[in-house]
Amino acid sequence: MSVEAVTHAVNVRLGDDERSVVVLDQTLLPNETKYLTLTTAESMWEAIFSLRVRGAPCIGIFAAYAMAVLAKATPEPDFDGFYREYSRLSEYLNSSRPTAVNLGCMLKRMDGVVLAHRNEPREALLAALIAEAKAIHEEDMAMCRKISEYGLSLLKDGDNVITHCNAGPLATSRYGTAQGPFYLAKEKGMHIHVWVDETRPLLQGARLTSYELTKAGVDCTLICDNMANIVMKQGKVQAVFFGCDRIARNGDVANKIGSSGLAVLAHYYGIPVYSLGPSTTIDFDCPDGDHIPIEERNPEEIKTLHYAKSMALPEVQCYNPAFDVTDHTLLAGIVTERGIVRPPFAENFAKLFPEAMNK
Amino acid sequence: MSVEAVTHAVNVRLGDDERSVVVLDQTLLPNETKYLTLTTAESMWEAIFSLRVRGAPCIGIFAAYAMAVLAKATPEPDFDGFYREYSRLSEYLNSSRPTAVNLGCMLKRMDGVVLAHRNEPREALLAALIAEAKAIHEEDMAMCRKISEYGLSLLKDGDNVITHCNAGPLATSRYGTAQGPFYLAKEKGMHIHVWVDETRPLLQGARLTSYELTKAGVDCTLICDNMANIVMKQGKVQAVFFGCDRIARNGDVANKIGSSGLAVLAHYYGIPVYSLGPSTTIDFDCPDGDHIPIEERNPEEIKTLHYAKSMALPEVQCYNPAFDVTDHTLLAGIVTERGIVRPPFAENFAKLFPEAMNK
Repeated sequence: MSVEAVTHAVNVRLGDDERSVVVLDQTLLPNETKYLTLTTAESMWEAIFSLRVRGAPCIGIFAAYAMAVLAKATPEPDFDGFYREYSRLSEYLNSSRPTAVNLGCMLKRMDGVVLAHRNEPREALLAALIAEAKAIHEEDMAMCRKISEYGLSLLKDGDNVITHCNAGPLATSRYGTAQGPFYLAKEKGMHIHVWVDETRPLLQGARLTSYELTKAGVDCTLICDNMANIVMKQGKVQAVFFGCDRIARNGDVANKIGSSGLAVLAHYYGIPVYSLGPSTTIDFDCPDGDHIPIEERNPEEIKTLHYAKSMALPEVQCYNPAFDVTDHTLLAGIVTERGIVRPPFAENFAKLFPEAMNK
Repeated sequence: MSVEAVTHAVNVRLGDDERSVVVLDQTLLPNETKYLTLTTAESMWEAIFSLRVRGAPCIGIFAAYAMAVLAKATPEPDFDGFYREYSRLSEYLNSSRPTAVNLGCMLKRMDGVVLAHRNEPREALLAALIAEAKAIHEEDMAMCRKISEYGLSLLKDGDNVITHCNAGPLATSRYGTAQGPFYLAKEKGMHIHVWVDETRPLLQGARLTSYELTKAGVDCTLICDNMANIVMKQGKVQAVFFGCDRIARNGDVANKIGSSGLAVLAHYYGIPVYSLGPSTTIDFDCPDGDHIPIEERNPEEIKTLHYAKSMALPEVQCYNPAFDVTDHTLLAGIVTERGIVRPPFAENFAKLFPEAMNK
């Protein structure tokens, strides 16, 4: 498979009839490539909750298409009745996962479109929702490209980078964020070797990132999460790249569980840590990481190991947070499509995003 | 199940006919409790290699019984022929796993018994081997008890301790080393909460440690390895306890992969890290961690997840070291049955083990 076949794969799209969202079921990878055609709010909620569709940007795109489809299936002729039902469905989808900011952000954006078309014919409103969802999708492609370019500017030929979870094409649209630079490097003929953390408990690193990188011919090595320290100690890591689900105003980054530990290890060895993601991920209403809700998931994810047989006694007590917060003091930079933000983050965010800080 | 039922379980023993070693197959836990009766060198080698019997002290005991049994099955009437074959079998068993020092140490001790009885009747030699194996087993029980007591002296009621891999009764005989203090605390009515790292790739934490602790009624919570940082950051860890497979003269400790990363994290938060194990684990011929051979194991252990279905593409490249070295600068102490060694280790080892340092 070529790099382009991986980076340009369409993992989320509007169904041809515009009454469904078609999405790759990521939980079945790498063993099976199966697309789901979803038409109901319940199946869409479940697809996000169960990580069939995952990755903060990808969830945002999916939710936008989902609302366009659900709006079309909402028959109420008068706007108030329609909007009541639309809002209920939007809040319902928003309840599927709490940590990532993109989901709520894109739902809010779609909501704005509905309100802006309250006095127009329903057809026009529905068409505007579809157009907005497609715009969100296309903007994401452009953002990912920029982020990948900025990210690649931090690397030199021959570097080894360690990455966590999946923030590649599957999690976004085209290239990805944290893993985008690796595909871009491959296209440019640069050699970057990637250490892929398997990312327990749901193994997005093993199942998705090593899958995508290997398919694209990017040199990579899969390790268990607890092996990151040994490769850093051996001098085989020049940078840490991971994505983000929500960034607080002070630069604290919430990302997949395990990211913060990786950052502490890198700090110890003087290896720079970069979080890569779209600026929509920055939640300016959130002062610091302590204010980011951390999702806790089903203990069965630890105990039964992804559809395998039981790995621990049923009565064993588990603690299963799905994300953690990397303290900003551990980060060398945050890479957005507007540029690379370096510490002090609050100050440099203000420079790069004056409109957001002055609101 | 009571604490005693866990701590006093006999997981390795000589067969009643003295022509076999009976051992619990740890790879089947927690789903199945099955004892293997082994009579051939090949099956014994495989039992160590495949981690059916594991844990440095337990491997040492097993190897001692194994050599007693294999000696009995070696028919050569003259000593030279017998010893040639005995030595071949001993070297063969020793080749099963390279990192732990106990295996080679106990084989050497058994070898000494053979040589000491070279001029005695074969019956006496074989009886001496069995007696020596039993002595090794009994000494281990006493050592584990002492180590557990010293370890417990480092904790106070209500403490939370994070532990890695399995160094409990299954890995030793009675109590265990790194996890021994938790059983002892339970017996004494102290409350200690244990965070159990699942310990990828072979999940000894999930499959064995959380199994033993839960069966014994010790309060514990299983986490994925990459969750250690979040619980430390939350202030929920007062100490790190793990075992050891080989300790260099300068205090560098080789233990299950992931231990060193845990130590770096603890260092960052100012949490003390203790390695607990018998003094036989200290390899005085080894100057530092760089001289400890690190076993690399089959990539399938990462990719196929312990007898489950494939978790990554077959062509994905893996790096699969089974142990790593925790730098002595990251350790607050090494707990042995002779006491707790604190830094500077070389100096304090010399005080505690003058006979070993002067050789």
